[in-house]
Amino acid sequence: MAFPCLDAVESRTQEIASRSMTNGPEPSYTTGAHREFTSKDPLLLDYGGRLKEFTIAYETWGEMNADKSNVILLHTGLSASSHAKSNANNPRFGWWEKFIGPGLALDTSRFHVICTNVLGGCYGSTGPACIDPADGKRYATRFPILTMNDMVRAQFRLLDALGVDKLMASVGASMGGMQSLAAGVLHPDRIGRIVSISGCARSHPYSIALRHAQRQVLMADSNWNRGFYYGGVPPHLGMKLARQIATVTYRSGPEWEQRFGRQRADPSRPPALCPDFLIETYLDHAGEKFCLEYDANSLLYVSKAMDLFDLGIANQEGIRRLREKNKHKLLEGSSSGGEHSSGGSQREACTLSLPRVPYTEQQVSNKNTVPSGGDAGNIVVSDDLVLGLSPMRNIPTLVLGVESDILFPAWQQREVADTLRKAGNTRVKHVELGQDASLFGHDSFLLDVKNIGGSVKSFLEEFV
Amino acid sequence: MAFPCLDAVESRTQEIASRSMTNGPEPSYTTGAHREFTSKDPLLLDYGGRLKEFTIAYETWGEMNADKSNVILLHTGLSASSHAKSNANNPRFGWWEKFIGPGLALDTSRFHVICTNVLGGCYGSTGPACIDPADGKRYATRFPILTMNDMVRAQFRLLDALGVDKLMASVGASMGGMQSLAAGVLHPDRIGRIVSISGCARSHPYSIALRHAQRQVLMADSNWNRGFYYGGVPPHLGMKLARQIATVTYRSGPEWEQRFGRQRADPSRPPALCPDFLIETYLDHAGEKFCLEYDANSLLYVSKAMDLFDLGIANQEGIRRLREKNKHKLLEGSSSGGEHSSGGSQREACTLSLPRVPYTEQQVSNKNTVPSGGDAGNIVVSDDLVLGLSPMRNIPTLVLGVESDILFPAWQQREVADTLRKAGNTRVKHVELGQDASLFGHDSFLLDVKNIGGSVKSFLEEFV
Repeated sequence: MAFPCLDAVESRTQEIASRSMTNGPEPSYTTGAHREFTSKDPLLLDYGGRLKEFTIAYETWGEMNADKSNVILLHTGLSASSHAKSNANNPRFGWWEKFIGPGLALDTSRFHVICTNVLGGCYGSTGPACIDPADGKRYATRFPILTMNDMVRAQFRLLDALGVDKLMASVGASMGGMQSLAAGVLHPDRIGRIVSISGCARSHPYSIALRHAQRQVLMADSNWNRGFYYGGVPPHLGMKLARQIATVTYRSGPEWEQRFGRQRADPSRPPALCPDFLIETYLDHAGEKFCLEYDANSLLYVSKAMDLFDLGIANQEGIRRLREKNKHKLLEGSSSGGEHSSGGSQREACTLSLPRVPYTEQQVSNKNTVPSGGDAGNIVVSDDLVLGLSPMRNIPTLVLGVESDILFPAWQQREVADTLRKAGNTRVKHVELGQDASLFGHDSFLLDVKNIGGSVKSFLEEFV
Repeated sequence: MAFPCLDAVESRTQEIASRSMTNGPEPSYTTGAHREFTSKDPLLLDYGGRLKEFTIAYETWGEMNADKSNVILLHTGLSASSHAKSNANNPRFGWWEKFIGPGLALDTSRFHVICTNVLGGCYGSTGPACIDPADGKRYATRFPILTMNDMVRAQFRLLDALGVDKLMASVGASMGGMQSLAAGVLHPDRIGRIVSISGCARSHPYSIALRHAQRQVLMADSNWNRGFYYGGVPPHLGMKLARQIATVTYRSGPEWEQRFGRQRADPSRPPALCPDFLIETYLDHAGEKFCLEYDANSLLYVSKAMDLFDLGIANQEGIRRLREKNKHKLLEGSSSGGEHSSGGSQREACTLSLPRVPYTEQQVSNKNTVPSGGDAGNIVVSDDLVLGLSPMRNIPTLVLGVESDILFPAWQQREVADTLRKAGNTRVKHVELGQDASLFGHDSFLLDVKNIGGSVKSFLEEFV
């Protein structure tokens, strides 16, 4: 039996290896032109890491008004850059191209939209692929563990530098929907309105499992080399496989049923173990397209930050205590300037041993202490989350969910809305798109201009 | 940062390599004692392969009555052996332990239950790990492509040998639910009742995508070596990763929400990229437990056979034409005895090239020629499937589905039931377990003795 899909991987490895001999290491990630803000003040991270300095890449659309009151901060999904929309400097289509512009969902004739590449990303912001100023080498997996809050803190440093005291709105989808809520909890006085699309207030185990599978597959690629692949062949196969798994979680079954059905790529040929059905060639292509477009270590760190996301009060309190314990690192940093986040203590701190006794199947019980959302309808709002989200109680909030989403299922957005209401927020708007409205699953936020864009636009422009 | 999960993989590889130096190649797959039936008559496979001879491993429970009219044929899921239940020869717990026995779902005080390891499997039946009689070497990926119908044909050879003309019932779940229907279409006169649990009448693209991801991950393990790993270190890492992905598709989000929530394996330690949350250690353990328990090539072939499953009339007609074209191979085989399934023509036939132009994102349309099931409720029954299932119109059939199943979603079982009814079957019973009844997702058939077992028992024992 022939395996053209494996032949393709092998020749790609050879091609990259020989190209890097002549042209230097690759890939270099770019989305074209963006602005950069560099903070020379150190940033203390939630889990004790410290960045002596950091850069945030960003792009803007629309004019900022005189009192800087028309600013929308747009948060991205996991792998997106700041390039949400084409502009004069960079005519390439952006990831929210049809949602941003005069008269569109984020109306640039009224608002000034800022989109950043997240801290930890690879499109211009400081991340694992960057040079550690402490030793002139790439961070790789010496980079410290990040959280959503860390990313949001970095964004607000940028807003400080731009002189933006209060956002007109914080808007985001998917991971950006997490960040939009995190921003509301962290800086409630600096945000006018919040939009959280296909996000959640804390990651649930199923989404952790789906990301875990991607990370494990990526880390299993020997080219990943425990994160130290810069200058060599990057783990393009691991990235390709991880992206295929991700793509399955981004779309929905009914959509693929309509779009691909059981069509085979070439029905005249006998079945094979390499991609064969049209859905398989689609996934293969999605993986292929992505595998050199994003930094593998960025994927790992940002994906992990999503798992760690939990706006419940218990987690917030735990992190608060940790930050208190570690705040001395900020002072050390500003005086000496030599110590850095990925130093000894962090390295040791990140040594996790698996439990000696492996996990064994247990009898199912409902004794879990944190009440949680389940299937359609019966959301049990937890006090932990009500207390955690209570800083947002005065911020008008739009929560948008999509029934066909399996990664951020609709019950998670219902949980956010119900929790906010229970926390006393009287201006919560919750929209759930049924399968009649959108079959695109999690990716609806990228595709459904009418329903997603329409809801966002009317929420941002209506008198709340 | 430390990576204990990668350390564990490396030491396992070394351990296997050194063990195989002293004890010979491993693993050898076994579930203990089983009976074997070997057919010396060649078997022509749907896609043109031919097995000169083949063996089917099987086990039985309960007494066969004098006229052999009380036989239930039980079909397994993908990776299960014939060991559905402990017995005197093999006291190990079976995969349907609590569903088989006196007074249980398959009541062995009344029925004689036969369970086989599928053709292509690795627990005693002929599969890729077996020796090819033509050259004395393991088949590996020289093994021919299989279908569900091929597996059912092999089972019926066993029934012929046992003198069982007509089954009291054909029962199966998951892949076994596919086979149970396939048997009904292939041999409607030889089956009294059919039970199909969490199965389908044809694989849909989402389930193909989920299996595709597993196969790709497995095939990416360099130890897989395009299938020729026997005698060396097997692709245990690829198998572990594939199993973790599979496990995600076997369970449901709400169940894990209750069971694991956001608990971390060791909350006193900082987050890490290796398994960290309890759900991650659970998946890691599930992968670990499986990775040497099943043959990698069997997984690929049987998984592919599931993708190819389509009881629609168009597919049946296509296969019928193919079998007609290839039937000469049976005659050749019985005379010469030298030619075999994995010979030249099959090898060439399995060479699939990817399309030269990669798949590009297309505008979504509903012009797909085969109407298909979508979301809850609005099943459009296709004529293709009505004609395909019409041989079953006189067989009382129980179709069982679980709302929380994402691999074989509940609409697929509704599709089977609606299609059978439209084909004129007036004795179709359809049961769908809502999330109030079962949160176990696809795995409900292994776990839910009360609801799944109860429905099966009453269907088999009631006067139809």
